[in-house]
Amino acid sequence: MLGFHKLEFQNLAFRLVIKIESSSYSIVISDDIFDKLSVFLESHFPDHQIFILVDENTEKHCLPLLSWIENERLTSGDALIVPVGEESKSIDLLSGLAESLIELGASRKSIIINLGGGVVTDLGGFLASTFKRGVPFINVPTSLLAMVDASSGGKTGVNLGIYKNQLGTFCFPEAVFCGLNLLETLPKRELKSGYVEALKHGLIANSQIWNSLIEIDLEQIPSKKIIAQSIEVKNRITLIDPFEKGERKKLNFGHTIGHAVESLSHINREPLLHGEAIAIGIVMESFLSVFHAKLPKQELDEIRIFIFNQFDKYQIKKSDFETLIELMRSDKKNENEGINFTLLNEIGNSKIDFNLSEEEVTQALEWYITI
Amino acid sequence: MLGFHKLEFQNLAFRLVIKIESSSYSIVISDDIFDKLSVFLESHFPDHQIFILVDENTEKHCLPLLSWIENERLTSGDALIVPVGEESKSIDLLSGLAESLIELGASRKSIIINLGGGVVTDLGGFLASTFKRGVPFINVPTSLLAMVDASSGGKTGVNLGIYKNQLGTFCFPEAVFCGLNLLETLPKRELKSGYVEALKHGLIANSQIWNSLIEIDLEQIPSKKIIAQSIEVKNRITLIDPFEKGERKKLNFGHTIGHAVESLSHINREPLLHGEAIAIGIVMESFLSVFHAKLPKQELDEIRIFIFNQFDKYQIKKSDFETLIELMRSDKKNENEGINFTLLNEIGNSKIDFNLSEEEVTQALEWYITI
Repeated sequence: MLGFHKLEFQNLAFRLVIKIESSSYSIVISDDIFDKLSVFLESHFPDHQIFILVDENTEKHCLPLLSWIENERLTSGDALIVPVGEESKSIDLLSGLAESLIELGASRKSIIINLGGGVVTDLGGFLASTFKRGVPFINVPTSLLAMVDASSGGKTGVNLGIYKNQLGTFCFPEAVFCGLNLLETLPKRELKSGYVEALKHGLIANSQIWNSLIEIDLEQIPSKKIIAQSIEVKNRITLIDPFEKGERKKLNFGHTIGHAVESLSHINREPLLHGEAIAIGIVMESFLSVFHAKLPKQELDEIRIFIFNQFDKYQIKKSDFETLIELMRSDKKNENEGINFTLLNEIGNSKIDFNLSEEEVTQALEWYITI
Repeated sequence: MLGFHKLEFQNLAFRLVIKIESSSYSIVISDDIFDKLSVFLESHFPDHQIFILVDENTEKHCLPLLSWIENERLTSGDALIVPVGEESKSIDLLSGLAESLIELGASRKSIIINLGGGVVTDLGGFLASTFKRGVPFINVPTSLLAMVDASSGGKTGVNLGIYKNQLGTFCFPEAVFCGLNLLETLPKRELKSGYVEALKHGLIANSQIWNSLIEIDLEQIPSKKIIAQSIEVKNRITLIDPFEKGERKKLNFGHTIGHAVESLSHINREPLLHGEAIAIGIVMESFLSVFHAKLPKQELDEIRIFIFNQFDKYQIKKSDFETLIELMRSDKKNENEGINFTLLNEIGNSKIDFNLSEEEVTQALEWYITI
C-alpha cells in the first residue's frame, strides 16, 4: 500500500484524509461546504488566480453559491462553461479550454475549481493535470454520482468517439468538497442514478452499505454517513492500488458490461445515465458471478430484484450483442485474449481478474434479455 | 531530493540509473544500442505488444534498424508515422494516434517505442502517458538534441497553436537508449543545433562541458562521454526537482527568449531549429546575466563570440519586440508580474527566479539587434 487514509467526524462534517507517496488531500463531506472551501483557499492558495469550470446546469444552480470569491481573484469574472452531458468529455473541448486559459493569462499559479458532476470533474481534472504540465485543482462535485465516485480517486479523462476515458491521467486533486445542499437542485433521476456506485461499493467491499441502501428511498438525499462510508470504500481500494494494476480493478465491477451498454445507449440516441447503465452491468455481472465466482444464487436474486424494482429494464436486442462485445474488447482493462471481469464471491466481497470468453459473456446477455 | 542517480561505464557503454520515488529507469549511451534494447524488451516486457512511433525521416533511416523485432509482436506490422517537424506536436495528432492505437487493439499490455527526435519523444511520451491513463514507453532518440535533452527528464507535451508545450505531463520512460550510430544519418545542421542544449548544460552547471565543447568540431558526432556528462547534468537537476518548482528552472536558461524567437521564426515562416533559437536566447540571457546576476563581461564575450562563430545571426526587427514579449509572457514559468529568468553567475553556475520587467528584457533585444 502506498498511502493511508483516516476518516474523522468533527464539527458536523466527515473528513477523509488521503495520503499518497509525498502528497495528501482531504475529502470533506458536510451539509454546507462553502465556509470550509473559503478557509482552504485562503490558507493553501492565498495568491492563486482562481478559474471555475462549470456546465450549463451548474452555472445556473451552483455557481451563484461561489459568489463570495472576490472578483479580483477571478481574472475574467466569468467561469469556463461547457455544455451539459458526456459529449463534453472530448479532446476538442479540452483543447478549447486550454486555449481559453492561455487567453485569460492562466499560469502555474492558477487553481481550477471543478464545480459539477463527473463530466466536469473528469474533464477539468484532465485539463488541470496537463495544462502547462499541471496546475492544482479542487473538485466540488454537484451530483451524488460524482461525490461517491468520480471526484476522488485520481482518475481523469476524456472519451474518444464512443470509447470512454481513452485519454486521461491519474492525478489527485488538492481537496474535494462534497456539500449535501448542492444535491437539492439535482433531478430525482440523476440522484437515483448516483446511488448505483454506492450500491457497487457495498457489493464489492462492505455489505453494511448494501444493507443500508436497500432500506432507504433512493429519491431522497442520503445521509452524510452513507456518502462517507461509500467514499471510504473507494479510497481504501484506491490507496492499495492507485494505478489500477490489481486491487483497484474491484471498482470496475458492473462496469465492463455497464460501460458497453452505456455506449450502446448513446449510439441508439436514447442515452442512459451512467448509474442506470452500471445497474444493468451489475445485474449481468452478478449473473456471471454465480457461474464463475462463488456468488450464491439467492444473492443474485436479491441484487436483481432490488435493481429491477428501482430501475427500468433496458431493451437490448440480439443484434446488439456484437457491438456490445466489441465495446467490451476495447475496454482498458483487457490485457489478454478474452474479457476481464471483477466478480462477486458474496455480497460485500469481490475478486479481480476473471478472464471470460465472448461466449461466456454472451450467456449473460442472453439471460438478461429473457428475464 | 526525491531520488538518486548513478553513472557507470561498462562494456563500452555509459549507463545512468535514475531512481524517482518508487520507480527507476536507465539511460544507456552506446555506439550500437539494439542488442541492449532487445535484451531489455525480452527481460522486462516479454509479452507486451510493441508499437513504434516514427516520423517520416526516422521511418526511412532508423526504422529498418528495428527489423529484428518479431513480426508477431508488432500487431500491425507497421509503425505509427507522423510528419517531420514541430507541427506534429499537436493535440489533433495526439488524438489521431490514440484512435489508431484503439483500432490496432492496443491495451495496457502494449508498449510504445518512440524512435525519433524531440518531437517524436515529446508527442509519443504524452500519448503513452495518457493513453488509457498510461502505457509504458521507451525513448530511442535519433537526434543529438533529443539525446541530451528531450528524451530524459520526464517532460512530455504538445503545442497549442504558437504556444509551445502548453498541454503535457511529467512522466518517465521505462528506459532511454542513445545509440551514436543513429546520428550518422542526421543532417549536419541538426547535429550542430543539438549541441546547443549540451552547451547550456555546461553553462548552467558544469564548466568542463563548456570548455570541452568549445574545442571540438560541432559538425562531428560527439564522444559518448560528452553525451553522458551532458545527460548527467540534466538528470542531476531533474532529480532535485522533477516537477519544476525550483531548481529545474535552471534548465530554462536561454529558453525564455529562445522559445519566443523560435515561435517568431515559425510565424515568419523561416523556422529556426530549436537549438539555433536557444543559441540566440543564450546570448541575450547572458547579456542580462551581466546586469542582473554576476556574469563577468569577459565571459559574456566568450559566449557571444563562440556562438556567433558557430550560428548565423537571426534578423530580429524592432517591430517584432512586442510579439516576442507577448510570447515570453505566456511562458509556463511566469507566475508573477514580469518575466521569469534563470541567469548565469559565471560559466558553470546559474541561479533561478530573476523577475525582469518588459523594459529590462527589451534592453537585451535592443542590444542583440545592434551587435
